[in-house]
Amino acid sequence: MTLARLNRLTASLSKSGLDAVILNPGPTLTYLTGLQFHLMERPVVLFISEGKDPVLVLPELELPKVDLFPYKVQAIAYGENPSEWDKAFREAAQALGLDAKRIGVEPRQLRLLEFRYVKAGAPDAEFPDASDVLTNLRLKKDKAEVEAMRQAVKIAQDSLEATIPQIKIGMTERAISSELVIQMLRHGSASEMPFSPIISAGPNSANPHASPTDRKLQIGDLLVVDWGAGYDGYISDLTRTFAVGKVDDEYLKIHKIVQDANSAGREASKPGAPCANVDKAARNVIEQAGYGKYFTHRTGHGIGMEGHEDPYMRGDNTQIMEAGMAFTVEPGIYLPNRNGVRIEDNVIITENGADVLSDMPREIRVVG
Amino acid sequence: MTLARLNRLTASLSKSGLDAVILNPGPTLTYLTGLQFHLMERPVVLFISEGKDPVLVLPELELPKVDLFPYKVQAIAYGENPSEWDKAFREAAQALGLDAKRIGVEPRQLRLLEFRYVKAGAPDAEFPDASDVLTNLRLKKDKAEVEAMRQAVKIAQDSLEATIPQIKIGMTERAISSELVIQMLRHGSASEMPFSPIISAGPNSANPHASPTDRKLQIGDLLVVDWGAGYDGYISDLTRTFAVGKVDDEYLKIHKIVQDANSAGREASKPGAPCANVDKAARNVIEQAGYGKYFTHRTGHGIGMEGHEDPYMRGDNTQIMEAGMAFTVEPGIYLPNRNGVRIEDNVIITENGADVLSDMPREIRVVG
Repeated sequence: MTLARLNRLTASLSKSGLDAVILNPGPTLTYLTGLQFHLMERPVVLFISEGKDPVLVLPELELPKVDLFPYKVQAIAYGENPSEWDKAFREAAQALGLDAKRIGVEPRQLRLLEFRYVKAGAPDAEFPDASDVLTNLRLKKDKAEVEAMRQAVKIAQDSLEATIPQIKIGMTERAISSELVIQMLRHGSASEMPFSPIISAGPNSANPHASPTDRKLQIGDLLVVDWGAGYDGYISDLTRTFAVGKVDDEYLKIHKIVQDANSAGREASKPGAPCANVDKAARNVIEQAGYGKYFTHRTGHGIGMEGHEDPYMRGDNTQIMEAGMAFTVEPGIYLPNRNGVRIEDNVIITENGADVLSDMPREIRVVG
Repeated sequence: MTLARLNRLTASLSKSGLDAVILNPGPTLTYLTGLQFHLMERPVVLFISEGKDPVLVLPELELPKVDLFPYKVQAIAYGENPSEWDKAFREAAQALGLDAKRIGVEPRQLRLLEFRYVKAGAPDAEFPDASDVLTNLRLKKDKAEVEAMRQAVKIAQDSLEATIPQIKIGMTERAISSELVIQMLRHGSASEMPFSPIISAGPNSANPHASPTDRKLQIGDLLVVDWGAGYDGYISDLTRTFAVGKVDDEYLKIHKIVQDANSAGREASKPGAPCANVDKAARNVIEQAGYGKYFTHRTGHGIGMEGHEDPYMRGDNTQIMEAGMAFTVEPGIYLPNRNGVRIEDNVIITENGADVLSDMPREIRVVG
């Protein structure tokens, strides 16, 4: 499977004007090798070009991993002294004849650390952005990927259901977050979570990217839970919003608006239509209800091995949805310094429509 | 506190030949601001130069974080469409007059993503490696940092003690890892762990960087547990090696050698001596015992906000140990395809010697 993926990549290089691509530890490297490498102070880089075995530069202590590769690679290992590292990268570039060539990079993943070593090894090379090529490679999920994502959603949902009865007034956001993580591990999540749960209540819930604090749940708060599990290299990313005891009518109202927006976004998710439609459908509901300026982010992002990947559900994204694309639908309304609501589901485009992986009730539920 | 750190940094810029430094989300940014930013597909960069308020480029949806800054910053926010982002970075560079200046970077943390936006905003600037300046900033831990690390060690140790009685023959490495993570959360670890525990037994333990697998514990295995907790932004990183039931005499022997090497490394940890001494002291014990070629990595690495940071305990590192430096002492012996041993402690250099934060028994213990 990884060999087929590698072949798909190398076959696409020349028509993208690339002689090679370089990858450091991260989702794309794992997608192409089935292996996990650590992103650390020692650079690890896989050089991929057409018609030659890939070349892997890595620290000696990672050499045992080379035996686990699903296809032949040429390994160039370096020792503990950083002054030796330049040489290893020079050898790699020479082995593939890459100097003065076009070596594609992944700017969201590649650090200056790896980049500067590769550049020193191939000083006359160009380094065009290969994000499109690499993104397209991973864009449409195959059956096994969808099943892993489905499992990651199931683990997340079961874990939150197991956590809800433990949520009480006076409990801190941080304590809820810990309990939810424990439940995800008990339910079979990978121990490396895709992201730390966002548990935010009251005024904190009005910040879409809050981190859990020691603030205690109070009656009248809205409680936003944005969480996800990991399974077999794939993740889920969901959000539900709860009422802590009795909440103001306006909060019930904005919750219902967001629920309708989420529903509209899911319904707009189908093959052949632009990604923008999903954003527009959800945003329209919120704007019509008079809360447009409080929906401060795009409606969704791609999902798979990463929490944020292509395609992005923005109002200006003309990219056409195709079967196998996976993304979130997550409209929200955030009333500054008061309360916020977000409802997020994970969706996969199918031949005829969309498969919504998450089915936990979206209606507001009372906790505490 | 963070303002004092910022002033310490800006005061050191000119003597390092730098007009500014740029930071993206990561430990150094958190050290200087006390705030957590997400490393994601949207670039976030703090520009720091002397005599002016720092400038922060960030997505609009992160704007609420600006109010949490411990000192004045000029925020430049951009919207969801990436075509607007260049402009925000250009404004930032102009606000600080940075074009054609020397802007220091942190290559281990900065991605090409942020780098290329900053470079587009200041096309004639140079981008020297500022790792030394930034490393020195964080090198000596203050009292509060040491206390956070002590707590992270205590949480880790208590959690492993709580896990040990649950380890049984036939249990998978992955299951042990999950249980250990659960215990760390129950004992108060931050839910964002510093790293996923390495649980490796039998032949897997001979790979110093193994990831937990579905392999089941067998009688006769050595079991390496390399784990750490997070507390208040600081981490611990420890290793102990166990015997699963009765193991071969050679494995008991190499365990004892590594234990002696660990002890020698800790004893060599004192102010005024080069870091190399710690490596040499530990390595000498293993070489004298005839296993030198099976100790395939350096003896330790710095520790604090990150799992791997300066100083590095390598045989060629002439850096002098000073009070406040924190690092691991972790010699090992790895017999390929058979079994491995590693014993790792966390040490802080004091005025007179070293404070060993970890005190869990180092003798081999039998599990299963």
